[in-house]
Amino acid sequence: MVSGMKTIRVGLIGGGVMAKAHSLAYENLHLYYSPKLPEIERVRLAEVDEQLARTGAERFGWSDWTTNWRDIVDDPTIDAVDIVTPNDLHAPIAIAAARAGKHVLCEKPLARTGPEAREMVDAAKQAGVKAMVGYNYRKAPAVAYARELIAMGKLGRILSFRGYYLQDWGLEPSGPLTWRFQAGRAGTGSLGDIGAHVIDMARFLVGEVESVSGLLETFVKHRPLPESRPIPGDGRLADGALSLGVVDVDDVATVLLRFDNGATGLIDATRLAPGRKNHLAWEINGDRGSLAFNWERSNELHYYAPDEDPRAEGFRTILTGPLHPNGAELWPLAGFGTGYLESTLILLRDFFWSIADGSPVAPDFEDGWRICEIMDAIVRSSHERRWVSATSS
Amino acid sequence: MVSGMKTIRVGLIGGGVMAKAHSLAYENLHLYYSPKLPEIERVRLAEVDEQLARTGAERFGWSDWTTNWRDIVDDPTIDAVDIVTPNDLHAPIAIAAARAGKHVLCEKPLARTGPEAREMVDAAKQAGVKAMVGYNYRKAPAVAYARELIAMGKLGRILSFRGYYLQDWGLEPSGPLTWRFQAGRAGTGSLGDIGAHVIDMARFLVGEVESVSGLLETFVKHRPLPESRPIPGDGRLADGALSLGVVDVDDVATVLLRFDNGATGLIDATRLAPGRKNHLAWEINGDRGSLAFNWERSNELHYYAPDEDPRAEGFRTILTGPLHPNGAELWPLAGFGTGYLESTLILLRDFFWSIADGSPVAPDFEDGWRICEIMDAIVRSSHERRWVSATSS
Amino acid sequence: MVSGMKTIRVGLIGGGVMAKAHSLAYENLHLYYSPKLPEIERVRLAEVDEQLARTGAERFGWSDWTTNWRDIVDDPTIDAVDIVTPNDLHAPIAIAAARAGKHVLCEKPLARTGPEAREMVDAAKQAGVKAMVGYNYRKAPAVAYARELIAMGKLGRILSFRGYYLQDWGLEPSGPLTWRFQAGRAGTGSLGDIGAHVIDMARFLVGEVESVSGLLETFVKHRPLPESRPIPGDGRLADGALSLGVVDVDDVATVLLRFDNGATGLIDATRLAPGRKNHLAWEINGDRGSLAFNWERSNELHYYAPDEDPRAEGFRTILTGPLHPNGAELWPLAGFGTGYLESTLILLRDFFWSIADGSPVAPDFEDGWRICEIMDAIVRSSHERRWVSATSS
Amino acid sequence: MVSGMKTIRVGLIGGGVMAKAHSLAYENLHLYYSPKLPEIERVRLAEVDEQLARTGAERFGWSDWTTNWRDIVDDPTIDAVDIVTPNDLHAPIAIAAARAGKHVLCEKPLARTGPEAREMVDAAKQAGVKAMVGYNYRKAPAVAYARELIAMGKLGRILSFRGYYLQDWGLEPSGPLTWRFQAGRAGTGSLGDIGAHVIDMARFLVGEVESVSGLLETFVKHRPLPESRPIPGDGRLADGALSLGVVDVDDVATVLLRFDNGATGLIDATRLAPGRKNHLAWEINGDRGSLAFNWERSNELHYYAPDEDPRAEGFRTILTGPLHPNGAELWPLAGFGTGYLESTLILLRDFFWSIADGSPVAPDFEDGWRICEIMDAIVRSSHERRWVSATSS
Repeated sequence: MVSGMKTIRVGLIGGGVMAKAHSLAYENLHLYYSPKLPEIERVRLAEVDEQLARTGAERFGWSDWTTNWRDIVDDPTIDAVDIVTPNDLHAPIAIAAARAGKHVLCEKPLARTGPEAREMVDAAKQAGVKAMVGYNYRKAPAVAYARELIAMGKLGRILSFRGYYLQDWGLEPSGPLTWRFQAGRAGTGSLGDIGAHVIDMARFLVGEVESVSGLLETFVKHRPLPESRPIPGDGRLADGALSLGVVDVDDVATVLLRFDNGATGLIDATRLAPGRKNHLAWEINGDRGSLAFNWERSNELHYYAPDEDPRAEGFRTILTGPLHPNGAELWPLAGFGTGYLESTLILLRDFFWSIADGSPVAPDFEDGWRICEIMDAIVRSSHERRWVSATSS
Repeated sequence: MVSGMKTIRVGLIGGGVMAKAHSLAYENLHLYYSPKLPEIERVRLAEVDEQLARTGAERFGWSDWTTNWRDIVDDPTIDAVDIVTPNDLHAPIAIAAARAGKHVLCEKPLARTGPEAREMVDAAKQAGVKAMVGYNYRKAPAVAYARELIAMGKLGRILSFRGYYLQDWGLEPSGPLTWRFQAGRAGTGSLGDIGAHVIDMARFLVGEVESVSGLLETFVKHRPLPESRPIPGDGRLADGALSLGVVDVDDVATVLLRFDNGATGLIDATRLAPGRKNHLAWEINGDRGSLAFNWERSNELHYYAPDEDPRAEGFRTILTGPLHPNGAELWPLAGFGTGYLESTLILLRDFFWSIADGSPVAPDFEDGWRICEIMDAIVRSSHERRWVSATSS
Repeated sequence: MVSGMKTIRVGLIGGGVMAKAHSLAYENLHLYYSPKLPEIERVRLAEVDEQLARTGAERFGWSDWTTNWRDIVDDPTIDAVDIVTPNDLHAPIAIAAARAGKHVLCEKPLARTGPEAREMVDAAKQAGVKAMVGYNYRKAPAVAYARELIAMGKLGRILSFRGYYLQDWGLEPSGPLTWRFQAGRAGTGSLGDIGAHVIDMARFLVGEVESVSGLLETFVKHRPLPESRPIPGDGRLADGALSLGVVDVDDVATVLLRFDNGATGLIDATRLAPGRKNHLAWEINGDRGSLAFNWERSNELHYYAPDEDPRAEGFRTILTGPLHPNGAELWPLAGFGTGYLESTLILLRDFFWSIADGSPVAPDFEDGWRICEIMDAIVRSSHERRWVSATSS
Repeated sequence: MVSGMKTIRVGLIGGGVMAKAHSLAYENLHLYYSPKLPEIERVRLAEVDEQLARTGAERFGWSDWTTNWRDIVDDPTIDAVDIVTPNDLHAPIAIAAARAGKHVLCEKPLARTGPEAREMVDAAKQAGVKAMVGYNYRKAPAVAYARELIAMGKLGRILSFRGYYLQDWGLEPSGPLTWRFQAGRAGTGSLGDIGAHVIDMARFLVGEVESVSGLLETFVKHRPLPESRPIPGDGRLADGALSLGVVDVDDVATVLLRFDNGATGLIDATRLAPGRKNHLAWEINGDRGSLAFNWERSNELHYYAPDEDPRAEGFRTILTGPLHPNGAELWPLAGFGTGYLESTLILLRDFFWSIADGSPVAPDFEDGWRICEIMDAIVRSSHERRWVSATSS
């Protein structure tokens, strides 16, 4: 800990899979980033399911637990709140936390709709707190380096973006109707769950989205109703499924894009692509070079650039290592392997660094809101079967 | 030659790059397929440029040459006509040839528009001649095997198609304004030049296209005007380019699709993707398995299928060889390498087999026309910024 | 923590790169494996450099520090010792620790020579303590699953092994003459540093090595002498390098193998392969199937197996996930990315599980000794320019 | 045809698989290389099996056929002889042809042993004829470009070579005991059949081989005896196999190398590697860069080179096209696919160009002889279990 830096006291709200993922990152912050980071104290975990709350706190290293998230938001000793709940709880918690003067890190998508997200932006702005949205994938060294290359002009003018997030766990029809399949709780389906990450990549790397033409489809239209509340973030069939419920969100979202800078783009997000496990992938073509990435090989960036001998040109498979952005603290050599844990670690590091030194967070709630707006436009476009503006105002 | 099979006398119309590609295939038909094929006689090559006509005939093994394609169509001794001209000449030549009772093989796209293509279909039907369109890529063993796997139900119900044709030769702004950049001659740009192949793959592998939402864009808006007629099919800058002309076709075509069977799809075709050379690639997801292909590795098919041990599941890189469809005559082992030549060879073999035994050709003019219709719909959709039906009637 | 399980108190000896890597694993054990694991207490870190010792203890979460490793070995409250020093210190520390009744985890290679390693085996046996050697890579789910497939007979009879460990950091001639380049401290160069991991893979997956023909070479024969003791495990040029010293270890080790079961093999280990960063890779051919792996894509196992349709056969790219051995606790889906950290985590888990439940450790000191014996044989073979037995007795 | 160039009249000796492969290349020479090449006339094919001779001549485009190779060698109108027989016939035919003043192209390996090959070299030298050996793979644009990069110093000093030729067709134990499994006819097994190509690559790209340590093994020790003479070059089980015969050649050949320039190397050649179809692959590490290649993706060269930004360094996947050596005449764009046919085409082109303009051929009989010498040394080394010099004198 840097002398003089105040310990930051954190509360975590949510006890599912993402609670574990974030907790792993908290656990490692000190080893990777001390003494550059302030000390982070894991004060309390809130989770409505008491059993999950208790074991989560114990296993994930949180000193205390509660079943009521207000016990965190209302605790004057807590500096920052980390929200890993289902999507419908993001707004009420984040707004309450901001109003209570707490810095907020909220999982993605920021909210179920653009207007809901907008309220969160406004609350955070009014309160003057740091407000970050958890688009962790952009923190991977390969992605961060891609942005640097683009910023350096290595690709020239950007012409085309193709982005995907393909998974296959949705193919199992016996997978229960968790909140991820319910519009009321999740907002959208594949679009918000995984497509949102692609939109984040598109904005991070190419620029603002101007308009969209979207196609949403639901192939698996019914799923078993769990008798009781399903375990958040967990796709397994809970005991006691008795009957089928209706899936009212998309499981495939395919989109054409037009960016403000004139580039064209396309996005495909589906949880129904056999063999694709965590295939968050994109390719960007400029008029001078290209970049490509796939999270399933998260240490690699593929880069095509001119060479003084055109015969020597080819896509380069760059293995990220200590020289790449965000890579210095990970491993002393390239090729040791970094993944989801490391991307979340860097996200949290950036959050706490911003709190400590007052610098802006990125991605912030404004980013989170724009992504929600673009998703709203995609939904509307799919209904109206036409292009629509990606800007609400 | 099978005894009793009549020699087939052929005329080739066009003297550019595709004339060489087809001639190579003619040259090799005998060695690969004799004695199962009738003997093929290369009677005459027609090309409006006399110099090209003479040297083309000599080098490509055609007994005679002419600068007037009617010398082929009107020759009663000629059985079949192979058309490798710019697109605007496809219809007049094919229609005249069909009316003269000749079998016709026509390069793709079949015509500049659906209605133009429809006249070709009608003429061929009326004449009762074999009428094939040159979508050669589907003849590659990897693609033909993909179709077999789908037909066998290995992928289950098809859910999604993603198809691309990415090249980068269009990035050179000094590349001259050949006919490929002129709507009057080509119909469309990337869409018809390379996107048409993707549409062929989509229909061949997934099924008929029901509706589309397209986005066409032209990034390189001007190109040098060659003083004289550019060499057909050749991208090199002809001598004497003096000033710039307007490119009035797309160089990027991005499309959302809906298939008759309910599957969703997307297509991206561009000649402006640095590092992509002949990247005709697609992925198909069914509810039980997936397939993926990229022409740049034309001997490979990627196939994901269930295994009795789910831990052993992964995309398989299948190297095509003698066991795969169309592979038996190529090499005695997999991995020796087959490419564009072989795909054209198989296309021609199928054309002449059909002539010899009366069986239907595939892809036929009807396929070629449907692809033109779908392209018309994409153009209209791009103008109207909405989904449109892919069927004219 | 399982009730009734005693807390295990650990001392770490060494303060370099591997101290950080192990400490990261200690930090995460609880989150990943609680409550199945006993509680692990990080009691003390020993490092001869006082500055490193102090900061290491603080940053890596060790309660106390010392510059004298005997303060750990002689501490009766400590249950287990973890040795991450340069190779020459492995034997004295491990032997003293075992004699003091402590369980020992020792980094690889176990010792500088076979006889030195043998003394360690004997001491541990006599003391009846758990004695593990740190070949972590075999713990990766992909490698553990490969072993299962082989054990299930999926490859049939093993015929051939090809193994590599290729890096490129040794190419920098200004890299200082750290202990890794000194025979007196390291034993051998690339052979023991990285080749040892390949030998571990070979024995783990194929079986015992019967004889070897080795070729050792040193291309970079001199390196800058650091004025003071170089930072252990750190390849950076320390301040004050004044003159060149002699590298008396190999930087390339190439080996032919014969296994006890008749299989043939080859190994190549080098720190001079431009572009290869952490390329620990192997391929195994049986008479019924093949497996291939590369640590640079540590989540992937490549598997070729017969299929009822031989046309559907191809190397499968398996993405490891929760179903694979050692994978259940990592991520709920495949493709999230696991790497060096996770492999070390599993190594430590196995060590402490064995201490807790009395089961044997693997890889144990006997494995470590055999690898040293095989390396001795490789060195002798290279000198004598002939095949030698890989067994000393 | 260039005016003034004399037509070259050729006889082909052998009627198996390689007869077809060469004939395909002959068929295409004119289309690819006219008018730069003299006209090539396929005069006569010799094959001891009369049925094969007749159908071979007809299908492969040879004007005449004979069952006695002396009808070619003794024909004064024939300028050049192309030998595609089993290995034991190479020397008698080539020597007779050279003495008759004919240029000779002989398939690889040049002979069964170094001394036998030496006689061929001497006969060709004495006769002053062009004498080429058929190592076609080095003619692929990717390989030829690799050599250029090395010659330009792009890799710096060469340190290591790793070369493989892996196939799997030998795994089928019912594959008959063709001449390829008989030492008397073939000389060696995998070593001469496929390993010879790797040695050619090693010498072509790295330099002369100084010494070797080899390990030969035969895993499939018996194969069905065909009642009658097996079809040359054909691995299928002939009708009437009655009993098993002994395989007296290697099916695995694994080798350590030392080059004259100090580089180290290894070679592995096997026909028993499941899933590897035509895996002729190599990697070369210099002290400044690396190259890698695999024939199964024969259009790709992998190249690692320094970049002014070390973060942008990665293996480049170069797709060969018209700019690469030997590529100009193939396709106008990269990525169309070239394979075995094209490599043989270039080999023959070079042979006939040398005949036409008097320039030296490469690879010549001297190369073929050196490869035989190195293979002799590998065999001796395997017997004596020690390193041996790769030079006979």
